Amino acid sequence: MDVTRRLARFVVESRWPDIPESARREALRSFLNWLGCAVGGCRHETVERALAALAEFSGPAQASLLGRGERLDILHAALLNGISSHVFDFDDTHLKTIIHPSGPVASAILALAERQAVNGTGFLHAFILGVEVECRIGNAVYPAHYDVGWHITGTAGVFGAAAAAGKLLGVNEQQMTWALGIAATQSSGLREMFGTMCKPFHPGAAARNGLAAALLAQKNFTSSERALEAPRGFAHVLSTERDFDAITEGLGETFEIALNTYKPFACGIVIHPVIDGCIQLRNEHKLGPTDIESIAVRVHPLVLELTGKKTPQRGLEGKFSVYHSAAVAVIHGAAGEKEYSDACVRDPAVIALRDKVTATADASVREDEARIVVRLRDGRVLDKHVAHAIGSLERPMSNADLEAKFRDLAGGILPGAQVDNLIGMCWSLAELDDAAKVARAARNKS
Amino acid sequence: MDVTRRLARFVVESRWPDIPESARREALRSFLNWLGCAVGGCRHETVERALAALAEFSGPAQASLLGRGERLDILHAALLNGISSHVFDFDDTHLKTIIHPSGPVASAILALAERQAVNGTGFLHAFILGVEVECRIGNAVYPAHYDVGWHITGTAGVFGAAAAAGKLLGVNEQQMTWALGIAATQSSGLREMFGTMCKPFHPGAAARNGLAAALLAQKNFTSSERALEAPRGFAHVLSTERDFDAITEGLGETFEIALNTYKPFACGIVIHPVIDGCIQLRNEHKLGPTDIESIAVRVHPLVLELTGKKTPQRGLEGKFSVYHSAAVAVIHGAAGEKEYSDACVRDPAVIALRDKVTATADASVREDEARIVVRLRDGRVLDKHVAHAIGSLERPMSNADLEAKFRDLAGGILPGAQVDNLIGMCWSLAELDDAAKVARAARNKS
Repeated sequence: MDVTRRLARFVVESRWPDIPESARREALRSFLNWLGCAVGGCRHETVERALAALAEFSGPAQASLLGRGERLDILHAALLNGISSHVFDFDDTHLKTIIHPSGPVASAILALAERQAVNGTGFLHAFILGVEVECRIGNAVYPAHYDVGWHITGTAGVFGAAAAAGKLLGVNEQQMTWALGIAATQSSGLREMFGTMCKPFHPGAAARNGLAAALLAQKNFTSSERALEAPRGFAHVLSTERDFDAITEGLGETFEIALNTYKPFACGIVIHPVIDGCIQLRNEHKLGPTDIESIAVRVHPLVLELTGKKTPQRGLEGKFSVYHSAAVAVIHGAAGEKEYSDACVRDPAVIALRDKVTATADASVREDEARIVVRLRDGRVLDKHVAHAIGSLERPMSNADLEAKFRDLAGGILPGAQVDNLIGMCWSLAELDDAAKVARAARNKS
Repeated sequence: MDVTRRLARFVVESRWPDIPESARREALRSFLNWLGCAVGGCRHETVERALAALAEFSGPAQASLLGRGERLDILHAALLNGISSHVFDFDDTHLKTIIHPSGPVASAILALAERQAVNGTGFLHAFILGVEVECRIGNAVYPAHYDVGWHITGTAGVFGAAAAAGKLLGVNEQQMTWALGIAATQSSGLREMFGTMCKPFHPGAAARNGLAAALLAQKNFTSSERALEAPRGFAHVLSTERDFDAITEGLGETFEIALNTYKPFACGIVIHPVIDGCIQLRNEHKLGPTDIESIAVRVHPLVLELTGKKTPQRGLEGKFSVYHSAAVAVIHGAAGEKEYSDACVRDPAVIALRDKVTATADASVREDEARIVVRLRDGRVLDKHVAHAIGSLERPMSNADLEAKFRDLAGGILPGAQVDNLIGMCWSLAELDDAAKVARAARNKS
């Protein structure tokens, strides 16, 4: 079984006309959503600290930091933009694997596009293939790999970045096979880091390391040629279970990017059904925090496993608290970045309501489902069943929703006219003669 | 159990007078041996290809590539020197874990020393502590972690590089704890890569990533504070067994560097008993290849697992062939880089003898032991029991042996007078007012 080589061959041999319209359309939506997140996150303390530590070591000013003024070498730009795009936990989600597919891939190749001219379709093509590679590898090992403790966006993302960068570099099949191998041996990122600055570091590192893997392979830096399937390869060492058919079956026929989703709320996808339901109840019944006696939510077990923090102290920790999230949904009717600020997490009114929230894990509840019961002081009992949260495949965000999200994120960073221009460029990416124009258009000139 | 924090506190609070003479002495020997390997390997194709791929992205010319003329930013210098020092598989070995301790640590801090002035004792102190951290973490998970398929020099080395660099940077306990966390989430490197250019990439990447971890932590880039011991931390995710006492017991009392060993042969340590025995038989009986009917070796099972390649095609693969190694030991009485060249691996005389070698795994044979039976055409049967190979703790290489090895390695790269000067500087490292002088003295001026 030559899984790694077959995947490499597919990426090398794929042609733009082979890519179906559904994949192209979702690629544009994914890219727009990713770019908004990267611009929106660019002033976050996580980015500032990484930049303070590493900017000194940057090579030539090849590539733009999105939303900012600096230009760094493409490896550092990939790292920093990758961090920036995930710092709000607001980027896209491949629900089958909980991978955030765009971060590693787009961060790598948008930086590369500023060094290596590529037109819009060439760029989109590489992007779609990179997402395909990381998500198929994710499909092969999820959920066992995730259960072991790996942050799959980092561990699978590095393959996606390598494949996409290798496609832009025009490497041959042998080199692409090595690129996947060099990616495999850098695959890393622990779920233990959730709630710290290392979480957004993971897609950044995956972008940089995958890009470096492709650049090394282009110079014939050798690697295992069976890095995925060998007894000591990625799928055996980093997972307790694996299904290689998930990598090779239907390759070129189905495209994982068509299954991509986008978050209306600035936190892990698993809490979205609860937030969605709480906002609906708030709006339907005009609830205020003082009306409420208790909120009881019934959720998939993963919700408590990932977001069970009862008393978050900082904004970032709030994203890992279903209790805080339910409280802000009722009080503010939203769960954007503002609702995950330090100030909001420490707001006495939020804390008071948070302490009235109880959550119960129930294996019969699906991951995108939630059951909520709110008891009011006046004795009324309200309930809400969310079958599929907003942002799911069944209830996707519209293009207009995505544009509104983009404006919310980028609006505080770039002037309105520049934001409008960027949105337009994203939708017409396939017609651009030079994809790097998007990166340059996202630079802060002030 | 706050394993990570205790380890961080130990590194931060350790003072040079606390370091026993035995550790200081072995640190000098380790550093000398490492430097010779790094200089000797600096023209290897692996280094050339990595440099061809990555030099374009280097930042300011801060740090020297040992044995070469280029200067790169410290992160790239750490990566390249780390690759160079392991490219011959000739560097030091901590036998309890098969970690090659110096590569990740020395590559990181010698580069850092060119940016951040430090005297000789400060440098040696950080080096000893870095080795302590990586080897203790290795002790905690070896052999289970290695059996899973991890190249422990990469996976544990990143912690050592982070700790040593953090010590030189003077970070506080909190930052050191984060540095170990940022290291943990980059821990990577698969044994599947053995026999390819990715193997020496591992200590290089560990050096660079550990150095970056310390630099990030210095700017308060946050991480888990329980990265080693948490249920989703390094020791649980990357190993099936773990013993945290191996990290914390006797901290500051015993020093792992005192257990370091050096290779007389340019290949994995596990084949050394066989090579040693074959060279002894050759010299004692003046054997030539045509005298021999067969060579039967009985070895620890790991030997066949790691070096069982029967028909290596390239020099690098020869290092993973106990058969090739036994053949060159008899024919050339040596197993240096020359005996692992492409030419030597393809030499018909070597191939003919190689095909007469059989190897049997025997769990009753220790790792540093071998039993060899040579049948001669004239009917004689010779046998040799190697109880401890040359280079082991029981039969260590002398300082003179190490100097001779250094001259062999560096002699082809740097002029003789420069090599002599370098050796002298290594022995007197503790007296240097600026440790970076060693790096500058190892530059190729031609």
